[in-house]
Amino acid sequence: MRIGVLTSGGDCPGLNAVIRSVVHRGTDVHGDEIVGIEDGFLGLIEGRTRPVSHDDVTGLLTLGGTILGSARVRRDRIAWAVDNARTLARDVGIDALITIGGEGTLTAAKMFSDAGLPVVGVPKTIDNDIDATDVTFGFDTAVHVATEAIDRLKTTAESHQRVMVVELMGRHTGWITLTAGMAGGAHGILIPEKPFDIEAVARMVEDRFSRGKKFAIIAVAEGAAPLPGTLRFDHGAVDQYGHQTFGGIGNRLAHELEDLLGKEARPVILGHTQRGGTPTARDRVLATRFGWHAVEAVHQGAFGHFTALRRNDIRLVPVGDAVTRLKTVPKDRWAESEAVL
Amino acid sequence: MRIGVLTSGGDCPGLNAVIRSVVHRGTDVHGDEIVGIEDGFLGLIEGRTRPVSHDDVTGLLTLGGTILGSARVRRDRIAWAVDNARTLARDVGIDALITIGGEGTLTAAKMFSDAGLPVVGVPKTIDNDIDATDVTFGFDTAVHVATEAIDRLKTTAESHQRVMVVELMGRHTGWITLTAGMAGGAHGILIPEKPFDIEAVARMVEDRFSRGKKFAIIAVAEGAAPLPGTLRFDHGAVDQYGHQTFGGIGNRLAHELEDLLGKEARPVILGHTQRGGTPTARDRVLATRFGWHAVEAVHQGAFGHFTALRRNDIRLVPVGDAVTRLKTVPKDRWAESEAVL
Amino acid sequence: MRIGVLTSGGDCPGLNAVIRSVVHRGTDVHGDEIVGIEDGFLGLIEGRTRPVSHDDVTGLLTLGGTILGSARVRRDRIAWAVDNARTLARDVGIDALITIGGEGTLTAAKMFSDAGLPVVGVPKTIDNDIDATDVTFGFDTAVHVATEAIDRLKTTAESHQRVMVVELMGRHTGWITLTAGMAGGAHGILIPEKPFDIEAVARMVEDRFSRGKKFAIIAVAEGAAPLPGTLRFDHGAVDQYGHQTFGGIGNRLAHELEDLLGKEARPVILGHTQRGGTPTARDRVLATRFGWHAVEAVHQGAFGHFTALRRNDIRLVPVGDAVTRLKTVPKDRWAESEAVL
Amino acid sequence: MRIGVLTSGGDCPGLNAVIRSVVHRGTDVHGDEIVGIEDGFLGLIEGRTRPVSHDDVTGLLTLGGTILGSARVRRDRIAWAVDNARTLARDVGIDALITIGGEGTLTAAKMFSDAGLPVVGVPKTIDNDIDATDVTFGFDTAVHVATEAIDRLKTTAESHQRVMVVELMGRHTGWITLTAGMAGGAHGILIPEKPFDIEAVARMVEDRFSRGKKFAIIAVAEGAAPLPGTLRFDHGAVDQYGHQTFGGIGNRLAHELEDLLGKEARPVILGHTQRGGTPTARDRVLATRFGWHAVEAVHQGAFGHFTALRRNDIRLVPVGDAVTRLKTVPKDRWAESEAVL
Repeated sequence: MRIGVLTSGGDCPGLNAVIRSVVHRGTDVHGDEIVGIEDGFLGLIEGRTRPVSHDDVTGLLTLGGTILGSARVRRDRIAWAVDNARTLARDVGIDALITIGGEGTLTAAKMFSDAGLPVVGVPKTIDNDIDATDVTFGFDTAVHVATEAIDRLKTTAESHQRVMVVELMGRHTGWITLTAGMAGGAHGILIPEKPFDIEAVARMVEDRFSRGKKFAIIAVAEGAAPLPGTLRFDHGAVDQYGHQTFGGIGNRLAHELEDLLGKEARPVILGHTQRGGTPTARDRVLATRFGWHAVEAVHQGAFGHFTALRRNDIRLVPVGDAVTRLKTVPKDRWAESEAVL
Repeated sequence: MRIGVLTSGGDCPGLNAVIRSVVHRGTDVHGDEIVGIEDGFLGLIEGRTRPVSHDDVTGLLTLGGTILGSARVRRDRIAWAVDNARTLARDVGIDALITIGGEGTLTAAKMFSDAGLPVVGVPKTIDNDIDATDVTFGFDTAVHVATEAIDRLKTTAESHQRVMVVELMGRHTGWITLTAGMAGGAHGILIPEKPFDIEAVARMVEDRFSRGKKFAIIAVAEGAAPLPGTLRFDHGAVDQYGHQTFGGIGNRLAHELEDLLGKEARPVILGHTQRGGTPTARDRVLATRFGWHAVEAVHQGAFGHFTALRRNDIRLVPVGDAVTRLKTVPKDRWAESEAVL
Repeated sequence: MRIGVLTSGGDCPGLNAVIRSVVHRGTDVHGDEIVGIEDGFLGLIEGRTRPVSHDDVTGLLTLGGTILGSARVRRDRIAWAVDNARTLARDVGIDALITIGGEGTLTAAKMFSDAGLPVVGVPKTIDNDIDATDVTFGFDTAVHVATEAIDRLKTTAESHQRVMVVELMGRHTGWITLTAGMAGGAHGILIPEKPFDIEAVARMVEDRFSRGKKFAIIAVAEGAAPLPGTLRFDHGAVDQYGHQTFGGIGNRLAHELEDLLGKEARPVILGHTQRGGTPTARDRVLATRFGWHAVEAVHQGAFGHFTALRRNDIRLVPVGDAVTRLKTVPKDRWAESEAVL
Repeated sequence: MRIGVLTSGGDCPGLNAVIRSVVHRGTDVHGDEIVGIEDGFLGLIEGRTRPVSHDDVTGLLTLGGTILGSARVRRDRIAWAVDNARTLARDVGIDALITIGGEGTLTAAKMFSDAGLPVVGVPKTIDNDIDATDVTFGFDTAVHVATEAIDRLKTTAESHQRVMVVELMGRHTGWITLTAGMAGGAHGILIPEKPFDIEAVARMVEDRFSRGKKFAIIAVAEGAAPLPGTLRFDHGAVDQYGHQTFGGIGNRLAHELEDLLGKEARPVILGHTQRGGTPTARDRVLATRFGWHAVEAVHQGAFGHFTALRRNDIRLVPVGDAVTRLKTVPKDRWAESEAVL
């Protein structure tokens, strides 16, 4: 078969490992031709493709990013692509397509399959917020990077008797912040699922200092929000350039804690370092298994499905509610993380 | 309550993180006193204990090893301890015990509970071979260390057109070798579950070289065994000192491949570096959650149970078959790993 | 002898390794008593000290930060301390003092020695801007952290055809940015020693894209400055809280490049992660050697001197011009780094 | 100009970074053509070359090993190559040659230059034993890997009250062992420059245990030797396959210490992991600078010279005694390292 593969949406460690695995399994075992589609659905629409051979994927297991590139595409253009699925498939000469992307991409997988371009999906999000799979690749790497940063910040915080506020990725869910916060031993873990009370955070820090501890680490997800009206400073949420990353919750929180506590508080915004670079061993293996099973799914004709991890096994899950339902941090996990404070 | 805690068996990254979590949850939330028992069951038998306070566990999240020490104890002495469970508990002044250890320790947990010393178990094995839990802490760290080593060996192998044989931990199961082998892109993965044919391994390497590849990496578990009679050299399994680690399967395999292929083959025995040092983020979190839930289990009176990970949740599992049944690498995982060759 | 030791100024990986080494050499070899002075010169002035024994320094080799704490002290208070040097020394009961700190601290070392409190200095700056020593501890760790970040940012930049601007430490000198920039293969390296032309930076990026390269990495030191009047946007240099780190040169540069190039440009501000955490092997060894030689210097009576690395040897250098002269990046290093673009 | 480049001798992190830098500087700045010669002098003799363009070196900064390959060549063949230098140069069409290799390669550089093939050398040895340069690239990476291993072994040693013997690279000099041993806080550091007394090592370990310490780490260079007649077991130096790495000094030492002390002693042989994989930031920069200056040397006609680091500057050093003189660990460094015990 001639199988197209594309990567869509934001960067995520493990994308290249999926591509490598698709090529290994497809070409070596099934004798497929793998057609790389450039810049996600944009390349499909514009017919920009290139063959991807066994040699082309050498070294991809450890390489972050995606050799196929990725671009965000407006929903209306994707709708147009769905309407013209058969033609596009014929133009680029593929019998089936493996799409590696987030919720939107997986949903598109079903639409394309229904429209005559058979698609198998591979879920991709560093936020780990897809309900149908125990975990997604890229998440473990993001947590690894964030945890290393917290480990480093701790000694500085302690030496200078400071409060360190580290802002981690997660606009809508707190998985990275919860996990890295627990792994780094953060004393406060603030996530979007649970609006925080700035006064309570300040009290917690004061309790620590009153017990003779010399510092505190607060891990805050970029999407964490205070209880309405509890952050008195309204500026800073978005900076003068309109860039979310410049003056986000991390900066505001540090500023307010310094104001409330009369102690030095410093923000650190990890930003893009969390989503690039060499994947962890765990992410490499998960990405490799997803690619392997996606190729098998194509040959089994399990279109409109995507790969998912259940315990230690890979399952094929039909696209549907499971995709669109956001996996948020449940209450019992809040309790566990508080216990670590 | 006065809760004893002990660590038993081999070193495993995350042991200290469990101890820390037990103290945090027990003392901060339940007002328990935590009694550290030294050198596993030996300390229980000899009454060697010390209180472990909140301050005593500062910094333990990232510290490998166990501050309580660990020692292997003969089964007959443990049997004696079980017979005298009540007395020992009274002597060291504990109401309940949390034992962190492998299969033998978990089994003992049930025996002690039945004998009047209420015990909750926390599973511990870097080999990840306990069936009742999706994964155990320490495993991810071992895989991380092994994968980093394979990453480094690859460039040397390629520069010198060599075969590298890396021997990883796993006497009875191949989880570390399978996972690190896949993560490192090893071309051969040899595990105890699947006796290997040395000729087939040699052919695979020759195929690679005939396809223009300049090197090969073979990941072999220390417990991997050849098909009967296929390794012609019988020496080397045990070295002149009787130490398994000196002349194990890695050395024999490298020697034979060099002999069969007429190419340089070099063994690397990672050994103890796989089981020490700072745990990965994933292992820190799992160990912390196990400790948290073990304390809750004590207060719920769920004795004779142990903590287990199921998907993303921690469950309490009754000690029983689940413990003693060894989780081996299933056949479908062999196929996945072969596809990566 | 009773030897005091204090750490002064900002956090720097290796401070604890110096303290450990001073204790090992002083107590084990010379039978000295080591007196730890808390929070730098503040502790000396306020008489806050504690004995530091061999056991107290266990594990310090790999621990970032300083167990003695550090605080910035106003120059007038240090002047007062110098005037009262003999009294302070008698009050805390020390015969000599080892001060670990930056340029100001080293200068103070001479003043205290002249005033009757014999002091040996150990240079400390992650910026590596002290002329009298080939390198200072902490610098290699900062470069290591910054390089790992650049490695990770590259794959994201390439996947999304972006310009990434990474702001690194260095208010007055560009050593961290030059070294991490070269190590990370940054395409633009902007340092305080060399005012940059924003148009030239934009042209360099456009050249890269015109040659088919899909991304660019700009490493900029926090103290790098544009040629007068070449940055059209004057806001952003300092954010609404007056914190340099919020809206510094990295943010401004990313904003302007996006504006000039019409391509996505994203800033990443590494901040405090560069100055905390476990030191690299190189920094551990340098810090250990400095501590060792500082103790020897005390016993040789080489007061008013500080330890310095010359090639592979440690020398004792008299405090003087060598200290106050800032070691800046020389022109021939600019050329080397440009060649790497 | 048409400049050939070859890598010779054992693998060393940074080789590819030198090649990349030569291409960047040569092609981008001087308009040179860079001719890659495969497998060291073998490729020169057999005329196996390929052009190396700017695109060919993309990603090489972080890649261990050498894309040109390396092979050891018998001295008589190199002598033959020297006799036919002009012809070989004409056949592969190069005006000058940059050789990256160890002492033998540097010596050859002079011979080739005298014989009419102008050569500039770049020193390469992970052992750091070339006297004319403060340090060589690859060394810092080897030390980094070895130190990480010692860090991990410590916790296991402590948990099990064991002696760990870690064997590091260095047949003739102890730089890796001395540096990694100090960085890892090893309690015994045994190097080729200083024959050791097994009884003294055993006493040191017993002293530690008698002071309540629960473990000891011994770092031993593969080339370290006991005082004549002090190791009672004569077997094990070379294993049954004649491979030095199987039953070397690490294994013998662990066996004897166990025998002398009556305590568990375990050997770990790091082996090839020390010489492969991604270079540290420091090695990347040093390799890049060496490549840059080697190209400049070619254009300056400084043939028969090689690049060397002096303090923070790169110098061109004439091949001569400086090369052949082995840089061994001087006595004053022994003292420093003992102080850390």
